Amino acid sequence: MTSAQQDPAPPPAAHGGPFGWLTEQDAVRRAAGLRRELRPRAADSPLVDLAGNDYLGLTRHPEVTRAGADACLRWGAGSTGSRLVTGSTALHAELEAELADFTGFEAALVLASGYAANLAAVTALTGPGTLLVSDAANHASLIDGCRLSRATTEVVRHADPEAVRKALDGHDGPAVVVSDSVFSVDGDAAPLTGLAGACREHGAALLVDDAHGLGVLGDGGRGAPQAAGLAGDPDVVCTATLSKALGAQGGVVLGPAAVIEHLVNAARTFIFDTGLAPAAAGAALAALRLLRREPERAARARSVAQDFHRRLTQAGLDATAPDACVVSVRAPSPDAAVGWAAACRDRGLVVGCFRPPSVPDGISRLRLTARCDLTDAQIAAAVGTVVETAPTAAR
Amino acid sequence: MTSAQQDPAPPPAAHGGPFGWLTEQDAVRRAAGLRRELRPRAADSPLVDLAGNDYLGLTRHPEVTRAGADACLRWGAGSTGSRLVTGSTALHAELEAELADFTGFEAALVLASGYAANLAAVTALTGPGTLLVSDAANHASLIDGCRLSRATTEVVRHADPEAVRKALDGHDGPAVVVSDSVFSVDGDAAPLTGLAGACREHGAALLVDDAHGLGVLGDGGRGAPQAAGLAGDPDVVCTATLSKALGAQGGVVLGPAAVIEHLVNAARTFIFDTGLAPAAAGAALAALRLLRREPERAARARSVAQDFHRRLTQAGLDATAPDACVVSVRAPSPDAAVGWAAACRDRGLVVGCFRPPSVPDGISRLRLTARCDLTDAQIAAAVGTVVETAPTAAR
Repeated sequence: MTSAQQDPAPPPAAHGGPFGWLTEQDAVRRAAGLRRELRPRAADSPLVDLAGNDYLGLTRHPEVTRAGADACLRWGAGSTGSRLVTGSTALHAELEAELADFTGFEAALVLASGYAANLAAVTALTGPGTLLVSDAANHASLIDGCRLSRATTEVVRHADPEAVRKALDGHDGPAVVVSDSVFSVDGDAAPLTGLAGACREHGAALLVDDAHGLGVLGDGGRGAPQAAGLAGDPDVVCTATLSKALGAQGGVVLGPAAVIEHLVNAARTFIFDTGLAPAAAGAALAALRLLRREPERAARARSVAQDFHRRLTQAGLDATAPDACVVSVRAPSPDAAVGWAAACRDRGLVVGCFRPPSVPDGISRLRLTARCDLTDAQIAAAVGTVVETAPTAAR
Repeated sequence: MTSAQQDPAPPPAAHGGPFGWLTEQDAVRRAAGLRRELRPRAADSPLVDLAGNDYLGLTRHPEVTRAGADACLRWGAGSTGSRLVTGSTALHAELEAELADFTGFEAALVLASGYAANLAAVTALTGPGTLLVSDAANHASLIDGCRLSRATTEVVRHADPEAVRKALDGHDGPAVVVSDSVFSVDGDAAPLTGLAGACREHGAALLVDDAHGLGVLGDGGRGAPQAAGLAGDPDVVCTATLSKALGAQGGVVLGPAAVIEHLVNAARTFIFDTGLAPAAAGAALAALRLLRREPERAARARSVAQDFHRRLTQAGLDATAPDACVVSVRAPSPDAAVGWAAACRDRGLVVGCFRPPSVPDGISRLRLTARCDLTDAQIAAAVGTVVETAPTAAR
């Protein structure tokens, strides 16, 4: 999911106790069709999942789950403390070395989540004199990083190197340009080469969140920076998650060794958080090794996404052209999106349903994610379901 | 670890590329004895650990690791998405119900980390008109929550209900008072009854971070709010971590059902983060059930901490009186603290070493954590090691 540029309304003055205002906010959400509820799934659900981010079909792969289980048994269920105290195991170090090697960066630092990785990188690499130039469609965790930092943030037009250049033009001190590599709502890619060019004209650093690119883009899934020829460059830092293509949990920051050493010393979400659990580290490492052995998974995942797009568009739906594994389909309203997703679910298909405030432009969507392990028959059936349940106004 | 009130110095103007300033910062840290390095541990380390937060000795308990491993095998290595999309399993729901029941709160919401839980609660329960009253020694994650929120934050004297009262006196709109229940550097407890009293005079909400209290304080480890008679009150919200006494990973927010429903709809670190991995959820649930069956673990952990304190004080060291499981011992300088911790490690004992910026008052310390599974002989040997390796100036 992506950025929430709109915050919830401020609480009105307290009545009915200090949380009395929540009742009112709940009513507003219900009236607007924007109320969310959790829907816990079963372990043996017969539903076909086109909503999760398990792009490479690895989260339930027996090698990956076995490695996660073994790590839990061998190292313990938790890391027991901050990575700086007792939370660093040899398993974390091994994972970091292999992530850096695979993606082509000099060093890596694993954190408890991708959210934490983004907060760490954005806040620790900027200060009061820094200009942060942030794409308007960036993920919530990058936005929160900008808000937490002491830097000045300028939000620029989505995927526009010229806008970045203009923002940098007016600034004299240090600057960092931050962008998702693949935007999580519409699945489009950032113009990384153009962004790096703008950065280099101005001596700015480029910080790329490759959450939806790692494992999918680049040679055998080495990620968007590798695909753009930027991996390992001294002015490029990359964050990613271990919870999407790698099927586990956690986040990582990749970059020059000096950057990683600095984060160890200065990043609050690294220093003051418990280290990633061994099970997640072990599973992510196994997934990475499996991907190196079966690099074709990356290309297959991308081609499944292309297939979704072609078929949905042919059926007259307004679907985005995917640069990685995410395809979104516009819905006429929040209510229509919810009804559409529910109709799909009734027919055995789980699709994402994104409504405000999870969509930067306020337009509700179904969101379909491709997985490399979907068969052609499953793809055809899934698209059939989405098309047949579409509200009339969606075509 | 705890709050970093001091931020790293702002980056000077770029030279040697956009990250050239890191070299300079590194030199400053080295000169001040404040450089941190990761020290990955082995799975079969023979060292005695008095630095982690595994207060109940559960992170490597066979029931807990088995449950974590089984959850990984049954549910997959990752939760595959946001809790609002595909990341909620029946296991998450079961864990939430049992956490709420155990602690005495109406409802619970599990997040990927305790850090995320604090950011979620502080930001989603406040708005531009809210006054946040924050204890000066609060954990970094609460401080970051205050910084991220749109509220006005007033930092008040540590553990001082009168200071809270004064801060609330001058404010008319909604207010939230935030405090750790047990402060992570010195292990002292917050005056929760006094804080709740000050809140109620003003119609303010009380938000308590029980990271170091859950599993240790209250009847059979039900936590600090239960111990203070505040659990389940309509104006009290509690956060906690699953990575300390419960030996796993993750965070939880506990409170009135309306608060939890609001967080599902409004908390960015809940909505835009991948759900907690099944292994961590399964392990935490097993740890919770084990604690219910063996409630004496909580009291034993506290009494081990008391024992540490008594023995260290008798030996002439400046040790804090523990209200839960954390005992800190003052060191004369950052360098002396590092040397002291290293000398302990050479003798087979791992202790925490807290230096600026991890200590709010700038005073370096060794930090010892009690575990319920330490034998009397281990306690005596550990204290002997700390005392015999103490720098002369520490007595």
